[in-house]
Parts: sequence; C-alpha cells; structure tokens
Amino acid sequence: MEKLVVIGLGLIGGSLALDLKKRGNYKVFGIDQNAEHIKKALALGVIDAEIDFNEITDASVVIIAVPVNIVPKLAKEILDCVSEDTLVFDVGSVKNEICKEIVNHPKRKNFVAAHPLAGTEFSGPEAAILNLFDDKVNIICEADKTDWKILDKAISLFKKLNMRIKMMHPEEHDRHIAYVSHLSHVSSFMLGKTVLEIEKNEQAIFDMASTGFASTVRLAKSSANTWTPIFLENKENIIKSLNEYIKNLNEFKEMIEQNDANGLNETMHGTNYIKNILNGIKQSN
Amino acid sequence: MEKLVVIGLGLIGGSLALDLKKRGNYKVFGIDQNAEHIKKALALGVIDAEIDFNEITDASVVIIAVPVNIVPKLAKEILDCVSEDTLVFDVGSVKNEICKEIVNHPKRKNFVAAHPLAGTEFSGPEAAILNLFDDKVNIICEADKTDWKILDKAISLFKKLNMRIKMMHPEEHDRHIAYVSHLSHVSSFMLGKTVLEIEKNEQAIFDMASTGFASTVRLAKSSANTWTPIFLENKENIIKSLNEYIKNLNEFKEMIEQNDANGLNETMHGTNYIKNILNGIKQSN
Repeated sequence: MEKLVVIGLGLIGGSLALDLKKRGNYKVFGIDQNAEHIKKALALGVIDAEIDFNEITDASVVIIAVPVNIVPKLAKEILDCVSEDTLVFDVGSVKNEICKEIVNHPKRKNFVAAHPLAGTEFSGPEAAILNLFDDKVNIICEADKTDWKILDKAISLFKKLNMRIKMMHPEEHDRHIAYVSHLSHVSSFMLGKTVLEIEKNEQAIFDMASTGFASTVRLAKSSANTWTPIFLENKENIIKSLNEYIKNLNEFKEMIEQNDANGLNETMHGTNYIKNILNGIKQSN
Repeated sequence: MEKLVVIGLGLIGGSLALDLKKRGNYKVFGIDQNAEHIKKALALGVIDAEIDFNEITDASVVIIAVPVNIVPKLAKEILDCVSEDTLVFDVGSVKNEICKEIVNHPKRKNFVAAHPLAGTEFSGPEAAILNLFDDKVNIICEADKTDWKILDKAISLFKKLNMRIKMMHPEEHDRHIAYVSHLSHVSSFMLGKTVLEIEKNEQAIFDMASTGFASTVRLAKSSANTWTPIFLENKENIIKSLNEYIKNLNEFKEMIEQNDANGLNETMHGTNYIKNILNGIKQSN
C-alpha cells in the first residue's frame, strides 16, 4: 500500500482522502492544525490515521489542501524533506503565486500545481463526500516543470477520481477563474449580505427563498477562512471582474430607471446565451 | 368535472394546468396568444383542450399566468364576463399594481391576487412540470377583498397543490420579493453578462462552471419576456435593493484593494448566517 498524506482535512482535502482511500491502494494519513478536524476525520473514516509532519519523508503522495496563503510556505517545507519519488500537489484556487514561489526550488520537479474544479458550499471534514470529483476538470499549471514520472503518477491518481485534465498557464488560470468562479462567490456573498441587512423578517426570507434566492445565495455559505486569502491572492483579476460587474449592474439599473423595456429585454435575451454554453458544450463532450 | 381555464401556458401556467389536471376534478382548457404554445401544450398533455376567450363565461376557475404588465387589463376583461361563482386568480410576481388596478371593479370579490413562490429557469409549455408547487408558499394579497366562498375555493385549489398559504399586504409583498427574488435575478443576469463579455473562451466557461458559476448564473437563463415587465413594475423596490447591493459590492472591493483580511473575513463570516435562516427555519416548520 502506498503512503498518502493529506494536509488540511477540509472539504477538498477530506473528499480527496475519502475517495482515494476507496479507489486507490493507499493508506491515507491526515495532518491538520485543528485537533478537532483530526478527531472528526478519524471518526468519519475520512483518513486511516493521523501522522506527524516529520513522518512524511517517505510518503508516496502528499496533498496540500490548506488556504491558499499558506500553500507556498508549506509546499517548500514539504519539498525540503520528501524523497525523490514523492508526488506533492496542491489544490488551491489561485495558481500564479504558488508557481512563482516554488519555481526555483530544487525539488520543483516533484510538485504539481493543480486545481480540481469541484466543491460545495460546506466546509470541514464533515463536508467530505465521495464522488465529488467525478467528471470534473482538474487544471494543472506549468506541467513542464514537473518530472514526467511524477506527472504521470499525478495523472494516474486524478484518473482514479475520474477527472478530466486540462493544462493551463497559471496567469491564464487565475484570470479565467476570477471571472467564472471567484466573481460568483463575491456576487453571492454580497447578495446574502444585502438581504440580511434589509430583511429583518427572517421568516419572509425563508418563505421566499424558493424564488431563486436559495440557489443564487448558496455560495454565501462558503468558508470565510478559505475565501479571504483567495480574494487577496487573486486581487487584480477579481477587482477587474468586480468593476465590470458593477458597471453592468449600474447600466441595468439605469435601464430600469428609464423604463427602457427594449434595453432590458435585449440585455436579458442576449445573456440567455449562457444556456447554450453550459448545455451545448456539455453535449459535445 | 369543473371547467378550469389557464391563460398563458408558460412555466407557471403550464405547471398549474398539469398538476390540477392530475390532482383535481377539472377539465383543463388553455388560452395562449402564441399558437405554438397551444400546439405544444396539447401535444404534451398540459391541457385537455383549447378554448376561445368568449367561452370562459361559465368557467369555475380562470387562472391568469401572463407577463405582469398584461395582468391588470386582462383581469378586468375576464371579470367583466365571468359568472358570479367563478374564481379568477393571477400568479404574478408583483402584486401592488394589480391590486390597485382592480380595487373598484364590480367583480373584485371574484378575484384572488396570488403569487405562488415556485419556478425554474425554463420557460414555455415544455417547461411545465408536475409537483412544482409542493411545499412551496403561496402569497395572497388583500384576501379581505375576495368573497369568502371564492377565497375558500382558491384555498382548496392551492391545498391540492400542497402549497402553504401566507397572507400579505401587496406593498409588503413587493418590497420583500424585490430583495429576496428580483435582486437574485438581476445579480444572476449581470453575472452571466459580465462573464460572457469578458470570457471569449466558451470552453473555459464550461470547464470552470462547476466551481459555483453554474448555480449562481442559473437564473440568467430565465425568460426576458417574463422578467422585463417585473423589473419595471416593481421598479422602486428593485432600484433600492440594487443600490444597496452595489454599495456592498463597492465596499467589498475596497476591502480587497486595501488587503483588509479581517474586514473580508468578518463580512463573509457574518453573511454565513444566511445558512441558519435557510436551514434553521426549515427545520422548525
């Protein structure tokens, strides 16, 4: 059995642990600063056992699933001590910073900068679920900087999870993900905040949630500890996307103010095209 | 069998027709300006038969499920010609306008101003589905202006759909619904627009949609014809909610710009409270 270590037993780390325990020939060890997380992960069968950081040297795989601001420092510490054959990968939602930080590390070739595009709005080891990654995309950045044997090991592991692999430049990744994922999170958090501020009537919020609010505000349940460093680390792209978003909201508001029925109708009708992208491409894959 | 007429065979009208055909002792007739809708509704078994407007006089129930800007005029025309025992109700997402428009109609007592809080992002007769209204809330405005026998008939019908009834003042309804439902639609439409404008790479949108974008942008697939008049008819409330939303987005953006990790964390952590409202109240009901 191969020794697999997951550092950070939250939604993503926990779900990887759970699925790889089931699908791979791994003994899965966990590390988490939060003693409660270890306890829960053991109780829920998310990991086989706890392990100390100084025991990871001979691990076959080390997965870094901690908040993105901690990834670079931790990645270097791990690479400093693991074997020549160890695969180390992170799962962070921002990729440019980590790629830049470790580019000159002597063991850069043992590292895979990955971003499995999967998740839910829940957090902690109790959020870990099976099959989270099936049919999802896993983006790998600067794969050319990884040793081919290590990369092959990573790809075999991702295939066990039924993930589709896409290679992408880290800057390109961060730009795309700001618009498609990070902006969704900001818009949802602020929707939740606005409704909480204005609606003193909690029963009304609940009663009316079925009108689209519940799904649109879903991401506002996400972990503040996970998302604060993501927003700061992908700052420039997120601010650009937010400026565009706010501009569009203001323009739409003006159309309402001016009773511009045609403008509103055309804007919404044009935006309906998103349906084709989300359904159409799906069918062709 | 009672004669039930549905005017407007879209998502809501079609789903009401479908479910009442199955659960009630009704013969369900349909009226729609769009001949294609009638054809589809007949083919899909959404309605039993087409009917002409001048044949609705002896209907037991007439349901108005057309865009909100058309509701007042149509409601008056229907009330002008139906019998003393006919229940007429609308299902529009804005209630103040219709309540004001018909307050002095001699047959006001035959009318119920309703808003069943249910839906999907799809439209047309092909979007009609069974069980759409189960366990959802149906808001009735100015119920005191409806004859008690007619109101009883309406409530019996809504109970067949397993809906929970709430009484609400129309102004209060429009204020709540602007924040909880209409704002969600604007935020989602503008998210879709922003991503479409910036992301020329459709495959990237699709690949990354699983990161929260797909669910947050879901409402941007909604019908422009339905939503244009809603936004215009509930203009004041929506503009107020949009101003709050844009203010919150700008403040959040500033926190990112100023690397205010504490501010971001506290804001998101505070907003996580929406989880308690959406789950907590559910459990107590």
